[in-house]
Amino acid sequence: MTDKIRYGGDYNPEQWPEEVWDEDHRLFGRAGIDTLTVGVFAWSLTQPAEDTYDFTVLDRILDRAAAEGRQVCLATGTAALPPWLAKRHPEVNRTDFEGRRHRYGQRHNFCPSSPAYRTAATALAGRLAERYAEHPTLIAWHLNNEYGGACYCDLCADAFRDWLRDRHGTLDALNDAWWTTFWSHRYTDWDQIEPPSALTEHWRGTDHTAFQGITLDYLRFTTDALLGCFLAEKEAIRRHDPDRPVTTNFMGLYRPLDYHRWAPHLDLASWDNYPPLDAPPTRAALAHDLMRGLKDGAPFWLMEQTPSTTACRDVNPLRRPGELRLATFQSIAHGADAALYFQMRASRGACEKYHGAVIGHAGRDDTRVFREVAETGRELELLGGATLGARTPARTALLFDWDSWWALEISDGPSRHVRYVEVVHAYYRAAREAGADVDVVPHTADLTPYDVVLAPVLHMVKGDLATRLETVASRGGTVLTTFLSGRVDEHDRAFLTDVPGPLAPLMGIRVDEWDARPPDVVQPVRLGELSCEARLVFEIVLPCDAEPVGTYGADFYAGTPAVTRHRFGAGEGWYVATALDQPGVDAVVRRVLDRHGLLGPYADHPAVETSTRVAPDGTRLLFLLNHAPEPARLTAHTPATDLLTGKRVEEGEPLLLDPLGVVILLLQFEAANMPTS
Amino acid sequence: MTDKIRYGGDYNPEQWPEEVWDEDHRLFGRAGIDTLTVGVFAWSLTQPAEDTYDFTVLDRILDRAAAEGRQVCLATGTAALPPWLAKRHPEVNRTDFEGRRHRYGQRHNFCPSSPAYRTAATALAGRLAERYAEHPTLIAWHLNNEYGGACYCDLCADAFRDWLRDRHGTLDALNDAWWTTFWSHRYTDWDQIEPPSALTEHWRGTDHTAFQGITLDYLRFTTDALLGCFLAEKEAIRRHDPDRPVTTNFMGLYRPLDYHRWAPHLDLASWDNYPPLDAPPTRAALAHDLMRGLKDGAPFWLMEQTPSTTACRDVNPLRRPGELRLATFQSIAHGADAALYFQMRASRGACEKYHGAVIGHAGRDDTRVFREVAETGRELELLGGATLGARTPARTALLFDWDSWWALEISDGPSRHVRYVEVVHAYYRAAREAGADVDVVPHTADLTPYDVVLAPVLHMVKGDLATRLETVASRGGTVLTTFLSGRVDEHDRAFLTDVPGPLAPLMGIRVDEWDARPPDVVQPVRLGELSCEARLVFEIVLPCDAEPVGTYGADFYAGTPAVTRHRFGAGEGWYVATALDQPGVDAVVRRVLDRHGLLGPYADHPAVETSTRVAPDGTRLLFLLNHAPEPARLTAHTPATDLLTGKRVEEGEPLLLDPLGVVILLLQFEAANMPTS
Amino acid sequence: MTDKIRYGGDYNPEQWPEEVWDEDHRLFGRAGIDTLTVGVFAWSLTQPAEDTYDFTVLDRILDRAAAEGRQVCLATGTAALPPWLAKRHPEVNRTDFEGRRHRYGQRHNFCPSSPAYRTAATALAGRLAERYAEHPTLIAWHLNNEYGGACYCDLCADAFRDWLRDRHGTLDALNDAWWTTFWSHRYTDWDQIEPPSALTEHWRGTDHTAFQGITLDYLRFTTDALLGCFLAEKEAIRRHDPDRPVTTNFMGLYRPLDYHRWAPHLDLASWDNYPPLDAPPTRAALAHDLMRGLKDGAPFWLMEQTPSTTACRDVNPLRRPGELRLATFQSIAHGADAALYFQMRASRGACEKYHGAVIGHAGRDDTRVFREVAETGRELELLGGATLGARTPARTALLFDWDSWWALEISDGPSRHVRYVEVVHAYYRAAREAGADVDVVPHTADLTPYDVVLAPVLHMVKGDLATRLETVASRGGTVLTTFLSGRVDEHDRAFLTDVPGPLAPLMGIRVDEWDARPPDVVQPVRLGELSCEARLVFEIVLPCDAEPVGTYGADFYAGTPAVTRHRFGAGEGWYVATALDQPGVDAVVRRVLDRHGLLGPYADHPAVETSTRVAPDGTRLLFLLNHAPEPARLTAHTPATDLLTGKRVEEGEPLLLDPLGVVILLLQFEAANMPTS
Repeated sequence: MTDKIRYGGDYNPEQWPEEVWDEDHRLFGRAGIDTLTVGVFAWSLTQPAEDTYDFTVLDRILDRAAAEGRQVCLATGTAALPPWLAKRHPEVNRTDFEGRRHRYGQRHNFCPSSPAYRTAATALAGRLAERYAEHPTLIAWHLNNEYGGACYCDLCADAFRDWLRDRHGTLDALNDAWWTTFWSHRYTDWDQIEPPSALTEHWRGTDHTAFQGITLDYLRFTTDALLGCFLAEKEAIRRHDPDRPVTTNFMGLYRPLDYHRWAPHLDLASWDNYPPLDAPPTRAALAHDLMRGLKDGAPFWLMEQTPSTTACRDVNPLRRPGELRLATFQSIAHGADAALYFQMRASRGACEKYHGAVIGHAGRDDTRVFREVAETGRELELLGGATLGARTPARTALLFDWDSWWALEISDGPSRHVRYVEVVHAYYRAAREAGADVDVVPHTADLTPYDVVLAPVLHMVKGDLATRLETVASRGGTVLTTFLSGRVDEHDRAFLTDVPGPLAPLMGIRVDEWDARPPDVVQPVRLGELSCEARLVFEIVLPCDAEPVGTYGADFYAGTPAVTRHRFGAGEGWYVATALDQPGVDAVVRRVLDRHGLLGPYADHPAVETSTRVAPDGTRLLFLLNHAPEPARLTAHTPATDLLTGKRVEEGEPLLLDPLGVVILLLQFEAANMPTS
Repeated sequence: MTDKIRYGGDYNPEQWPEEVWDEDHRLFGRAGIDTLTVGVFAWSLTQPAEDTYDFTVLDRILDRAAAEGRQVCLATGTAALPPWLAKRHPEVNRTDFEGRRHRYGQRHNFCPSSPAYRTAATALAGRLAERYAEHPTLIAWHLNNEYGGACYCDLCADAFRDWLRDRHGTLDALNDAWWTTFWSHRYTDWDQIEPPSALTEHWRGTDHTAFQGITLDYLRFTTDALLGCFLAEKEAIRRHDPDRPVTTNFMGLYRPLDYHRWAPHLDLASWDNYPPLDAPPTRAALAHDLMRGLKDGAPFWLMEQTPSTTACRDVNPLRRPGELRLATFQSIAHGADAALYFQMRASRGACEKYHGAVIGHAGRDDTRVFREVAETGRELELLGGATLGARTPARTALLFDWDSWWALEISDGPSRHVRYVEVVHAYYRAAREAGADVDVVPHTADLTPYDVVLAPVLHMVKGDLATRLETVASRGGTVLTTFLSGRVDEHDRAFLTDVPGPLAPLMGIRVDEWDARPPDVVQPVRLGELSCEARLVFEIVLPCDAEPVGTYGADFYAGTPAVTRHRFGAGEGWYVATALDQPGVDAVVRRVLDRHGLLGPYADHPAVETSTRVAPDGTRLLFLLNHAPEPARLTAHTPATDLLTGKRVEEGEPLLLDPLGVVILLLQFEAANMPTS
Repeated sequence: MTDKIRYGGDYNPEQWPEEVWDEDHRLFGRAGIDTLTVGVFAWSLTQPAEDTYDFTVLDRILDRAAAEGRQVCLATGTAALPPWLAKRHPEVNRTDFEGRRHRYGQRHNFCPSSPAYRTAATALAGRLAERYAEHPTLIAWHLNNEYGGACYCDLCADAFRDWLRDRHGTLDALNDAWWTTFWSHRYTDWDQIEPPSALTEHWRGTDHTAFQGITLDYLRFTTDALLGCFLAEKEAIRRHDPDRPVTTNFMGLYRPLDYHRWAPHLDLASWDNYPPLDAPPTRAALAHDLMRGLKDGAPFWLMEQTPSTTACRDVNPLRRPGELRLATFQSIAHGADAALYFQMRASRGACEKYHGAVIGHAGRDDTRVFREVAETGRELELLGGATLGARTPARTALLFDWDSWWALEISDGPSRHVRYVEVVHAYYRAAREAGADVDVVPHTADLTPYDVVLAPVLHMVKGDLATRLETVASRGGTVLTTFLSGRVDEHDRAFLTDVPGPLAPLMGIRVDEWDARPPDVVQPVRLGELSCEARLVFEIVLPCDAEPVGTYGADFYAGTPAVTRHRFGAGEGWYVATALDQPGVDAVVRRVLDRHGLLGPYADHPAVETSTRVAPDGTRLLFLLNHAPEPARLTAHTPATDLLTGKRVEEGEPLLLDPLGVVILLLQFEAANMPTS
């Protein structure tokens, strides 16, 4: 372990002659690079034929790194098949959603159920571990790469049937779970079940299925099938290296895989941060917090980000001056112990040759991008180990649930325009911009630490969650949920009770019907003093014990409640029956946070992100991140010292943040407790 | 037969434990439900294996209905394959337009040419008839469900070749009909002919074909192939039940199947009414009148409508309060003798779980929707048999022709933006909003009863139609047609004469060329006092004997006729050479109707739909339907009595219609004759 | 050879009974038609079975043409398979990009690698040549038709591997060229290589590939595979007819085929002109000049244009009165020695029945279109041989490069919105509207004749081009290039130097980074007095020796150069770093042209196109084409005589052009030299 944030990224010297390597390490030295991810796509090089392994180049790469005092995160490289394997065993190529068996090409191209793939990948992982387990430069294992996609071949069909037998036990149970009597689907033999695809249940597209039950199970199966590949490689490695952390790089808000099913099997979480074009900074923050939540709040690695541009999008804008540094500190503010780039040197050919890199095609060290990378490297050296192992003392939890995401977006009715992440992000953003630290947690999480639990669009309610949410409210906490929550059980069967199902007692309401309108139709909502707008779905709420907090302003349900509050024990249940705009969500969330004293000291500076971290020794740090291109003029709420400049500020003194500026305040103990009192 | 409008709908108790059935019938009683459609998707239940039938549940459902005094429309349930059949005989699964053999999934999933399917479906229908023909509760047979789609497998290819042999006799005739010398397509063996698909003639999509002839014939073949399935089931039923009416639920303005080819084989027409989102009320009315026209004006069944929302659309709005009642009475005003819902109880799972239902997931009888269903049920009881068997005394006919629909929309040139139903609806709407009753009839219909014949976008002219239209005009009637009419013969070959081909003598014009412009280009048209707008296609008309009624206002054809009138015998031929906007179409159609005294008494209330029905005993009823959310204040044009309230109104007295209100006036004989003089 | 512009077009009498032929020739006489293209889709007629040829109809067609004094361009007809061939040898049907083997249908449907197709097509061509080589009416051979598309079958895969062996020699060389170490693609056997398709490297669509190298090579291979078909037919013909010119009709700006690879093998260039809807006249002009450039400036044939409308587009507008004549003279102004139509008589059936024709379905000679065709025919007779064999004395060259087109548009990053032809056209348009004659030439062209070389978006720089461009500048010329030029070598590998790679010394700049923004984002650019707008891509230019000519006005690179000029030897290198709007491009190009005295005499009349041609005898003609619907009032810049009217105009006198009017000035020698001094 180093005593500082790891800094570096993906490094592919196997693509270059060795004289380029000399130049690489010289430039790494200038930029403060200490960590290199190697071997991510080296399979065709390390195993050029079924019975031939060749580690010559990899040996040299690791030895050279060791000689230069850098450390290596070693990839197994199993995410892209070598051509010989695809030709020799055509079944390792995926069969796509359209039922087409692919031929050799691309990456992330392997069938997870294929024994030929599994055997070869696991053997390679074992060979690598056998050879490099003792290498002094090795600090972590990086299995495969960005696991994702799905396969629909006959091998997967068989594996799916086995998985279903495990899950449902009997065909009767499966028929009941999937509600197969509808549309004459009662299965009488496991072999009758086909993967849900364009050729079976999904005639109208990937999100349109005739049976949500089978589609949900295939999403879970795919998650588990790829996880099986991961576990097989991990086991092969553990035979030679019992200790070094094993991870794989996740993709944040990635719908196809339920990362919560993977989380227990990772030694540390890591992920690749490529926020959508023009996304607000809370979008990346939500992903950071989701990733941190995978390992119960433990620090994670930022495994990839671009130093300048992406290449794969239709439009690939440049990161403006200062954005790279700000994004890097944002990742640390949310729990990163490593800040790595894709990529160290730009590829000369193929589809990522225009992807940004620390070192460009001309190999210069006097570009703007290289300078910013190097300056950030210097600051990380300055910061040292101050943030390593720190945790986030959040009192607010946001429930994130892949099953609800899937169920909501594959539902027929009421509206295809409701997107899970958009709604979840609106609530997350409201809480974060109000200054609350937020843990993004699975539905099984221990809710004891939290005063506030936000559960937007929790379409599926599983296990004892409803009871645990009631407990939060009973002891004085606040639980908030929204439209399209509490609708279905784990098999996507509607609850045979009033909506919102198991959440109804806590919410004190009943919903019999819901309207949906095209995205251009606005429904005005009155929230106390505030007039805001709602769209897409409008549930008609009949309050039982709840009181209205906001009301619809138009249509035949004008005057009925759009937002309700229900006293429950010492606490409250809040229900938001429609997709409010951001000002509406902000108003609701701030009322909830305020009840628990959770509004931050700079909540009136919407562009200034705050984030608290508590180091293992109890030191409390407050990150202030100015996302605006203008300076932010704050008044210090407590005496503190900026770790990056060493400057001291007293309570009530002006505190200036540069455009895109970062301050990391070391707080005194009393003040530190204040914002989350 | 009951002595009232049948009321009820699709009922799937096989999905539920029997304690739910008790509750169902209790609620049916409260809502005035008397008719249940059962077994629509029960195949996998009634025949769980190739050699096993199990009617236990169906027995109980029918016996229970009988015990409760309700009647059953029994479905054969052959629209969705059971899994074992798809697995055992893979060829029963369809091969899609892309050439992909499907695997098990969805519904409407059977190949109509597959002997395995045909045998199994027919056997099941026979078994059902054998078992239930004598059941006291049975009142009609519902074969399959919403026949539709198409298959492109090798079995269908063979069947298509047989069908072509029947139709064309020789390959020379076929080559001539399809004009195959173009692009080197002269067939020398029947086996060379492939179904027109994405892999053969349709590289650019379903509406883009290289040869319109083969595509039209495949549409006709598909119509006949599915009809063959229907006829086989009907024959199996007739072996056991010689009397009860046999139907299948159509889908109104459904392009893939030419329902006019089916009509002779139905005992009664029935259909499912799901009008497009935000469609004007005349859209559903057009479909009602088209369906009524299938059986020469005889009453039909409304087999399905939603009591509240659909589920399958991107956006599924609620029916507002009163809309359900209004739509139900609209169906009766147009000829329905039954008003049935999909569905009685909401499915717990799968893709229709959010489709509206009389009884929701919570099983309540105090929801708004249940109340409206029950109130409408009470009104239907009140109405009793007053409308049963009544007919519509229309003097205006609108020609509707699937061949023209297909030919127009698969044509290359002049514009892909012209949609058959949009143009037809514009003329239908104009006539209906002017108060005329309209029969929507096939091109073979007897035109003797009509003063006015509207034939918009009659792209294909077949048989002796042109002569019969001339006869209408000769005897004093008016015939109207439009741009893109009279273009092709039954094989989609251009007429080798001036446009509009066989209609030219009646229209007294000649068209040598036509312009087309993108949808945002507006061409102003002057129609007497009125300035209106035209779009899409602009035919340049050279009048022979016709006189201009409207003229183009721009481009190089400014000042030339856009609308013409031609005196022909005692009558007139009208030609509209472009796609006028609705005010333009209204103006033209009202002039035509006015000539024959066919403007209705409330023609100046555009939101008030009127519809006349004459009961078997000669009683004349006038339905007044207010589609506006505001009251309509009319002045009674005749003394009459409202059947729903029993209130009497005298001529000249105020007649108030509530928002979305319905009045059914029992007319005195003299007045009754007036509007259609 | 006639002594006038050939006039006529595609003629398919085999679709009609012979009495129609009489009428055809009568009408041809009225319209001045002298040349007929026959047999383009006659394969199924001339070879009705594998062992049967039948030339009866073709004999009659040619004999009749001879008897009427008309000449025939005879097609081999191999562009559309006959049904028997597709049935007997299914492998002649193409396998599409999605991996689907097609069945019989459409045209342009043959696999170029299939021996069965190659054998049959070549045999047919030989038979035709054997039979008609001596026919007096024959004046040229037209092979196949509009070669295009691609096939992805296993035969093509094998042929591709052979092609790759020829090109790369060894797998090591191929691996290096395609940069396969990236994403583990190192091939160890030629058989591992698959055609790049939706099933291999192109999961996201035709322009999205994981490896640009393989995709570029497949585009080149496809070009060569189809060229192989052409060459095989040509060879078969040459065995019987050693002299008559052989051509095939190209499609102008057609991306899939690199026509520069074909050019040496054509005896004359010919092409089909169907400009996009609402394209400015310079779009067709660019295509004309590109086609003329194929044979080093020699005259070409306009093989097809529509006399009135197309049929295959979503919207097919009419050519307005006068547009047909104007387009015909435009083609002559750019080098056409023949002006042919598709088609002489409208097809009765199939997908082109609504495509415009000289003779419509009613067979009239009194339509507007027929009249315009006939009047143009009369003018061509009047013009006689004045323009035959003339050449364009251009001093400006525009480099057009299919490899750059492909490389730019299949690139991941920086922006999918940059379209090669749009940028190239903007520069071409600027030069043409400024009155410069332009040769559109390949990168291998001799640049000696040119003062100005425009090389927009020259993404790929091959061979010694950079040196030759430097030579142009050294001797006083001006070279202009733009953003996204000089990026990659012939294998699409980035140059490992500063951008713009080999062009950097000439441009005197360095580019380290580039921004991209969505199409709605405008970046203001200041160009001297002019404020214009830039979009899409913004390269950040660090001038070395170049001077700024224009500067960015916004974002963090505000004030940095957007356009630079670099003195190089006696000349200049200009660099435009962003996608300027047309006014911006105009301003830059006019400054460049002005430096060399290349602004035309009517450069201030943007709607008046000028085009100079020099006849073999040295006669100099200046075409003036008024593309506006208003008259153009010019002042004659020199004494001259209008060839069409015989009118003489003196220098300084008014020169009136009608709306859409054409004047062909016969210049005096002194004046003639002026515009290109």
